[in-house]
Amino acid sequence: MTELTRRRILQGAALAATAPFAASRSQAAAPLAGKQAPSFYRAKLGDFEITVVSDGARAIPLPPQFVRNVSNEQVLAAAEAAYMPKGSIVAPFNPVVVNTGAKLVLIDTGYGPGIGPTVGLLPVTLAAAGIDPKTIDIVLISHMHGDHVLGLKNPDGSLAFPNAEIKVPAVDFTYWMSDENMSRAPEGFQKMSFGYNRKIFSNLTDKVTRYEWGKEVAPGITSVETAGHTPGHSSFVIASGSGRMFFQGDVTNVPDLFLRNPDWQVMFDSEPERAVATRRRVYDMASTEKLLICGYHFPFPGLGYVEKAGTGYRLVPAAWSPVI
Amino acid sequence: MTELTRRRILQGAALAATAPFAASRSQAAAPLAGKQAPSFYRAKLGDFEITVVSDGARAIPLPPQFVRNVSNEQVLAAAEAAYMPKGSIVAPFNPVVVNTGAKLVLIDTGYGPGIGPTVGLLPVTLAAAGIDPKTIDIVLISHMHGDHVLGLKNPDGSLAFPNAEIKVPAVDFTYWMSDENMSRAPEGFQKMSFGYNRKIFSNLTDKVTRYEWGKEVAPGITSVETAGHTPGHSSFVIASGSGRMFFQGDVTNVPDLFLRNPDWQVMFDSEPERAVATRRRVYDMASTEKLLICGYHFPFPGLGYVEKAGTGYRLVPAAWSPVI
Repeated sequence: MTELTRRRILQGAALAATAPFAASRSQAAAPLAGKQAPSFYRAKLGDFEITVVSDGARAIPLPPQFVRNVSNEQVLAAAEAAYMPKGSIVAPFNPVVVNTGAKLVLIDTGYGPGIGPTVGLLPVTLAAAGIDPKTIDIVLISHMHGDHVLGLKNPDGSLAFPNAEIKVPAVDFTYWMSDENMSRAPEGFQKMSFGYNRKIFSNLTDKVTRYEWGKEVAPGITSVETAGHTPGHSSFVIASGSGRMFFQGDVTNVPDLFLRNPDWQVMFDSEPERAVATRRRVYDMASTEKLLICGYHFPFPGLGYVEKAGTGYRLVPAAWSPVI
Repeated sequence: MTELTRRRILQGAALAATAPFAASRSQAAAPLAGKQAPSFYRAKLGDFEITVVSDGARAIPLPPQFVRNVSNEQVLAAAEAAYMPKGSIVAPFNPVVVNTGAKLVLIDTGYGPGIGPTVGLLPVTLAAAGIDPKTIDIVLISHMHGDHVLGLKNPDGSLAFPNAEIKVPAVDFTYWMSDENMSRAPEGFQKMSFGYNRKIFSNLTDKVTRYEWGKEVAPGITSVETAGHTPGHSSFVIASGSGRMFFQGDVTNVPDLFLRNPDWQVMFDSEPERAVATRRRVYDMASTEKLLICGYHFPFPGLGYVEKAGTGYRLVPAAWSPVI
């Protein structure tokens, strides 16, 4: 009887160097594929069909003050405990397509191509999922940060979803398109965000529909005020039959840091105290209601449930279903 | 300012019934797709390429005595807490292909087609992943239960991986192919398992290689004794460069029940006490070493890390990477 010990496990590598196969110079019957599976995922929600369509993911090196009210050591330790690459977090980007039967709705658009090799993948993912961008009827924007709106345009400036009505939160549109607000914005992420919005929206002002909270913004999809991350940050309740899902946008960024520690104020939040209050409010409700949540920065496919844990919350990822 | 309350969230559905879109009789520009994404997932492991290739998943209604040493109420409560369908658990099936560069190795084979609509999907998944069954050089079997071995043959009895060497744990082969053991086996799952093995292996006895523990069974892949679930149940350490993964087979079944409660004796375990001891040994090691684990019955893609939690352990799923 062999015993499984650390030493024995680590012997695996040593064995590999000495045992018969090591001498083999044969090639496997098939070459390495070198290509990931297409990163989309489908689920039924009542009569609706949800398709999470990844725009990719990227490692974000953690600068000091990534979280305003917590030491950098605590943040680095939380990232390491979540098995993220040393000194970084990995943020995924999960736009969602909802086919209500009456309308094909895209929620948020990713970065668009050209930003880097691991993001801006939405067009590729849509193609893999068999969704033609020309067939999108409505694009809903949760809030006006670059990773949610830049994908509205192709690199040549043309519209990526040419037949879609574009709907943005009224409060965010007023805030981000204000030259006065831009002039007062701190350099870095905030100033850049004003620039991105000008790049996308300056010649679209007349074409954009501005939505209020508590309204049906597409069939079965209701906008919900979840402000703080941006002044107009919005979530969506998607409801069909007995199916119900809460698209939370950026109520938190990656869950291992910010769902676990809802009081942590990430540098991206416009109104940190308000964002904290929103998180508590949303997750108290979601955990009590056992509500299915879709998180834009949750690990793909981004679907799960929220449980109270310690002084914060924990994500219970929804199990992947190999069939729809 | 609107307030997010249970009432407001639930209004979503009510709004959908009264608001402008409800009157719309238009069709979405695209029909429902009705088809899940292909359920394979790739990762680099040193110079190796790992592809998890789902055979599907199925709901298993929970009979009394599903867990021998715990009340049915406790089991049902744990399943419900894990958001499983009422009165059931959902078990996924995750075979893995390892391309070592020298050999293309399949670990476990799923049910094979014909058992039901949501399992036996391995051939479809392999095709989606661009892997021709004829190119598999070695099939490694972790243990001889139906959901791991039935996929070795096509419905017509021919070999599903016709060019592969088939390697099975020596202890399991002796145990499951013994007519004496079969005659003594209790009716139900145990007796059926003897039958399945006869269906698959009776005309393959000369073609099957029987492996021992602590040996290199394919390049960089070492067999490890993790007995109890079956007498010969084996795991594999897959090692290349600094990459290391532990394919745990059925050291536990679904993690929400059995990783959380390693002392629970699932009805499928041949030697319950030994299976419990093996779980403790494996997960104490895995949690200390922060070892990447692949679980055959973990939610697809089945990769993650094990953390100590309370009197048991918790799975931290590895985040999906949209690129390889």
